[in-house]
Amino acid sequence: MSMTIDIHGHVSAPPELYSYKSRLLASRGYNRYPGNVVPEDRLREETDKHVQLLDGVGTDVQFISPRPFQLMHSESPASIVRGFAEVNNDTIARVCEMEPERFKGIAGLPQSPETDMTPSVKELERCVRELGFIGCLLNPDPTEGAGSPPRLDDRYWYPLYEKMSELGVPALIHSAGSKDPRETYSARFITEETITILNLIGSDVFKDFPDLKIVVAHGGGSVPYQIGRWRAARIRQGGETYDFDEDLRRFYFDSVLYNKESIDFLLRMVGTDRVMFGTEKPGSGSSLDAETGRYLDDLKPVIEDIDWLSDDERAKVLEGNARDCYSLLK
Amino acid sequence: MSMTIDIHGHVSAPPELYSYKSRLLASRGYNRYPGNVVPEDRLREETDKHVQLLDGVGTDVQFISPRPFQLMHSESPASIVRGFAEVNNDTIARVCEMEPERFKGIAGLPQSPETDMTPSVKELERCVRELGFIGCLLNPDPTEGAGSPPRLDDRYWYPLYEKMSELGVPALIHSAGSKDPRETYSARFITEETITILNLIGSDVFKDFPDLKIVVAHGGGSVPYQIGRWRAARIRQGGETYDFDEDLRRFYFDSVLYNKESIDFLLRMVGTDRVMFGTEKPGSGSSLDAETGRYLDDLKPVIEDIDWLSDDERAKVLEGNARDCYSLLK
Repeated sequence: MSMTIDIHGHVSAPPELYSYKSRLLASRGYNRYPGNVVPEDRLREETDKHVQLLDGVGTDVQFISPRPFQLMHSESPASIVRGFAEVNNDTIARVCEMEPERFKGIAGLPQSPETDMTPSVKELERCVRELGFIGCLLNPDPTEGAGSPPRLDDRYWYPLYEKMSELGVPALIHSAGSKDPRETYSARFITEETITILNLIGSDVFKDFPDLKIVVAHGGGSVPYQIGRWRAARIRQGGETYDFDEDLRRFYFDSVLYNKESIDFLLRMVGTDRVMFGTEKPGSGSSLDAETGRYLDDLKPVIEDIDWLSDDERAKVLEGNARDCYSLLK
Repeated sequence: MSMTIDIHGHVSAPPELYSYKSRLLASRGYNRYPGNVVPEDRLREETDKHVQLLDGVGTDVQFISPRPFQLMHSESPASIVRGFAEVNNDTIARVCEMEPERFKGIAGLPQSPETDMTPSVKELERCVRELGFIGCLLNPDPTEGAGSPPRLDDRYWYPLYEKMSELGVPALIHSAGSKDPRETYSARFITEETITILNLIGSDVFKDFPDLKIVVAHGGGSVPYQIGRWRAARIRQGGETYDFDEDLRRFYFDSVLYNKESIDFLLRMVGTDRVMFGTEKPGSGSSLDAETGRYLDDLKPVIEDIDWLSDDERAKVLEGNARDCYSLLK
């Protein structure tokens, strides 16, 4: 009997966590005494509700990270970002301790346009070695749309890639907020996922870090749908017809698309061995579809309903691919 | 016998046109004497080659606009942009005069972050009334990724929407260059198409301009593929399951996706009455697929190969929808 592993979830934290961030922001990082920010009973309450939601949709294990749009990586000074990331990760660690069979920790990194990757590398090391986390988030644009961050193939990022490779943890590409009034944070996720693939594909990064694992959230942004455009560009550069497709399979993808047609499409375009079950439940897809009576992020029946998948392929999407990718997962 | 109308093409101009732009740029708009920039024989030569390409793939009529990435809307002063847009449009008008059965003009607008929409409104009026053009390009971000343009639902754009409505001409959403080193102009097209839909959908613009026609290039950016995300958001705002889909059908789309799976997907998601044949040939898809021996932008066989389309639906995609949308097309 196979398990269902949801690789894309976020911690259900009580308001006390965000109230702490409010204090960090208002004091510009001065009032930083995380001590007992999130009371045990309130965290237990939220965690119980979260577990019930997972039970209701047949998810056995979910990987949880900080709620990305809350991370506010572009806030200055960087001590605000670091303070909030640390408490967020500590809170996740407590949830994983409460329900060790249900939750696995994914670290939020204290990325800041004001710093190099050192604080992120340190926090990742702490989360993996001390808190038992198995992966991290990676925001390709800590300026949150207000600046010019280095491309992901820039050496700026190398210390993180090195630490990820050493620890054996994948990064889930997930931007945080958006300061651009034309683009909500939710729209920006898709843009940043697209930029990530196009900046990394065919770059030296995968040569310099052969073990690096990059998971692109939300089905890879626009890239699978716009694949013809990038195939054509690659052919113009001297490549063969499907060179782009082959390189695209260097990435992993999650199934956080809230409709069957798109998940079906993703599986066909990148291969059933590259897609991991993900729902972000509870999150941006937790809207009730009155026509089916199901929530849009209840994706297990959707994947079970894709009839061209063999049992083996389906089990890989629901469990096996996650075990291949997240090697620290017991 | 139905015709094949390609709504997304760009003029094949000889190097003299771009050499003129080089002079405009180097002189910051000072050396502006467009007189006889593009010699007749060189233009004839390029046009003949272009017609041969269309003959080779069975395209009867193509709508041609300036090559978008060349428009450089963010150059300062705005006189550079205006000077180049005008000569571009004049050149297109000459091509349409040479081959009136094959080409229809789509205006490039002299959009600039330094001006309001007045120069664009004037140039559109000139192109439609004097040069016989039937539509225009619209760049949602004339800063080309280097600034903060007003959202497309801002009143900044209203004079253009008003003129488009009055003249009965659609706009093809197509950004120009990109000054962001993380995002090529080609990647930015997709981002800006996505932003366009998300900024306009459900806005007052379509109430204030009930006759406004917006065509979103390259299959609508990421929106059809990411539709579940936007359905969920709409439900959260109090909508029904498919309200987003319904509003999405307020836009037109072109088929400038260079593979069958994606065009098939687009047709299923937005409906066969909202998609117009487009290839941008010769352009970003003019790469030879060695496996089929065909160019990736040879899309008529691809659409003929989508077997669930009825003859009537196929004819609409290849011709009828363009005639509905572009009402000035004879």
